[in-house]
Amino acid sequence: MGKGRLEAFSDGVIAIIITIMVLEMHVPRGEDLHALAPLLPVFLSYVLSFVYVGIYWNNHHHMLHVTTRVSGGILWANLHLLFWLSLFPFATGWMGENHFAHLPSAVYGVVLLAAAIAYLILQQTIIAAEGSHSVLRRAIGRDWKGRLSPLVYVAGIVVSFVSSAAAQAIYAVVALTWLIPDRRIERELRQNAK
Amino acid sequence: MGKGRLEAFSDGVIAIIITIMVLEMHVPRGEDLHALAPLLPVFLSYVLSFVYVGIYWNNHHHMLHVTTRVSGGILWANLHLLFWLSLFPFATGWMGENHFAHLPSAVYGVVLLAAAIAYLILQQTIIAAEGSHSVLRRAIGRDWKGRLSPLVYVAGIVVSFVSSAAAQAIYAVVALTWLIPDRRIERELRQNAK
Amino acid sequence: MGKGRLEAFSDGVIAIIITIMVLEMHVPRGEDLHALAPLLPVFLSYVLSFVYVGIYWNNHHHMLHVTTRVSGGILWANLHLLFWLSLFPFATGWMGENHFAHLPSAVYGVVLLAAAIAYLILQQTIIAAEGSHSVLRRAIGRDWKGRLSPLVYVAGIVVSFVSSAAAQAIYAVVALTWLIPDRRIERELRQNAK
Amino acid sequence: MGKGRLEAFSDGVIAIIITIMVLEMHVPRGEDLHALAPLLPVFLSYVLSFVYVGIYWNNHHHMLHVTTRVSGGILWANLHLLFWLSLFPFATGWMGENHFAHLPSAVYGVVLLAAAIAYLILQQTIIAAEGSHSVLRRAIGRDWKGRLSPLVYVAGIVVSFVSSAAAQAIYAVVALTWLIPDRRIERELRQNAK
Repeated sequence: MGKGRLEAFSDGVIAIIITIMVLEMHVPRGEDLHALAPLLPVFLSYVLSFVYVGIYWNNHHHMLHVTTRVSGGILWANLHLLFWLSLFPFATGWMGENHFAHLPSAVYGVVLLAAAIAYLILQQTIIAAEGSHSVLRRAIGRDWKGRLSPLVYVAGIVVSFVSSAAAQAIYAVVALTWLIPDRRIERELRQNAK
Repeated sequence: MGKGRLEAFSDGVIAIIITIMVLEMHVPRGEDLHALAPLLPVFLSYVLSFVYVGIYWNNHHHMLHVTTRVSGGILWANLHLLFWLSLFPFATGWMGENHFAHLPSAVYGVVLLAAAIAYLILQQTIIAAEGSHSVLRRAIGRDWKGRLSPLVYVAGIVVSFVSSAAAQAIYAVVALTWLIPDRRIERELRQNAK
Repeated sequence: MGKGRLEAFSDGVIAIIITIMVLEMHVPRGEDLHALAPLLPVFLSYVLSFVYVGIYWNNHHHMLHVTTRVSGGILWANLHLLFWLSLFPFATGWMGENHFAHLPSAVYGVVLLAAAIAYLILQQTIIAAEGSHSVLRRAIGRDWKGRLSPLVYVAGIVVSFVSSAAAQAIYAVVALTWLIPDRRIERELRQNAK
Repeated sequence: MGKGRLEAFSDGVIAIIITIMVLEMHVPRGEDLHALAPLLPVFLSYVLSFVYVGIYWNNHHHMLHVTTRVSGGILWANLHLLFWLSLFPFATGWMGENHFAHLPSAVYGVVLLAAAIAYLILQQTIIAAEGSHSVLRRAIGRDWKGRLSPLVYVAGIVVSFVSSAAAQAIYAVVALTWLIPDRRIERELRQNAK
């Protein structure tokens, strides 16, 4: 069972998600700055989500690269991840249109949290199929970043009811820690090649 | 005539269908729970349809895997299946926005029924091209699940005019029976390799 | 310069066009037959356009299959075809929502005409690059169907101002003549293999 | 780290962008010419953007063709380019619906400018990874067209506040200079093959 179609299908879904998000930025009726100004928070939430979906695509790309076989369980764990990613446009639009209000900021954090957990489940499913001596298993090591992120999202969800600005800051900081390229898989591949 | 583009095109269409469905979950105007609550049935119908489209993609993936040649008839039988799948976002949105009312639940069942029949037609077209000794022919065997599902959908359609909750239960149960991985093709491939 | 990405990009655009058309079938507000009835013409125009886009994808698939090299001219002739195909959702929606009124039916014919001409231009560009002894050149022969279709669309456009029902009939008949599988390329490939 | 998925993902996003733009051309309510007429500027801005996105896809196709390895930096530089391209539908729709008013024309120029800079960054990132003796480095030479375009866009943005017609003319002229096929990479590849 090849992984080609799994990658192609995931690429398709993620490409659509990342592009559909911008549709939530409705073309304003007026033609001046007053018409454009209310779109600023929508634009900012779009930038944040674009970076997040980009990170997921990037990491998905790396993880599948070291995956050698695809089982039925992996297909469904992957669809489960895509399900939560597909809620990004909704959560992003709701948060942006309500200028980062409390509840929308919390719901955005819930979607971030669910996607992070779905990613961990997919990772565990692949490792279970590949075995404990697989490249992926050794590459992720203790996986501090992957395990800590969900906890930070929970903190962000709680904080969003007090200060949604603080919640946004938390979400943005997590994104930044992931933006720093994750060299683990590439390093492991090089060591393997020796 | 290679099957690569047939798979790529089908992946593209199914990826768009599964992602477009979430667009029917319109971003609400308010920012509190009262604004979010009416979206619950829309969300639930989205989850059900996501699982159904995921099942179709999964089974399509397996069926094409053991298909060796692609004829003009297969191209059109495949487009026919994609046509009915493309009505999922509409049927899902109508059912969700009307809180699982009678007629929308029945129409949803009609789309499920038509897609199931289109899948059987595609399967027969491939078997006709591959021959009665093909891997696919032996793998599906008597194909109880594939043949019974349409009958159960008909039952769901009839029941939906009495109790749409019962119809939903029927649709969900069929989805669950398909979620259990269909090992027939994988088993047949292993036996073939011996 | 490989043709892989040209096929992949075209598949992507055509897959999106064929799926986006169904978005023009807006989810109705009511939950009974009265709410569904006005959608019938929209649905019928969607079926017609789905078949047309399916025919284009099918023929594009065959034509690219016998194309051996891709030039800059072919890239742009292909984009030109995709441009006119991208207007199908708009033309389909306008015609369907206005219950096949005169002008929308004529505009639909104009889009059909422009796409047919763009397809001929792409075909000529490929033949110019492949040479007069190419498989494609011999396969299309005098290309009666390809050359007559634009003339029939012109007739349909004129007729649509008198009777849009007659225009629809003309459009549907042309689609049916193309639905019959075009065996020319497959036959030529077999003769070539001898 | 292969470039296959990078190409596939970019193709997907660009295909969606180019097709989604036409969704901004909303189906009009009336059925006569009076209903269609206001769509002319929207249509014209769609044509301009279609050509621009087509140019980007074309050049991206050529540039990736001579790229041999893909680093994390290239993945993000590519996502950065896709981000600005994803704003084309919004900028196109706003400019078209406001009949090429001053501010929307300027914002359109800003998106053109940002995409051009993002393309240069991606090009530099690839050259940095490929080395100064790479095919791409030699092919682009002094890259007059790539370096001048951003300056012309800046001129277009300034001019748009005086005359948006003049700004449109500037944007269209730049597109035309890029439409003329860029033979540099193809020429370099032929010289290399000798």
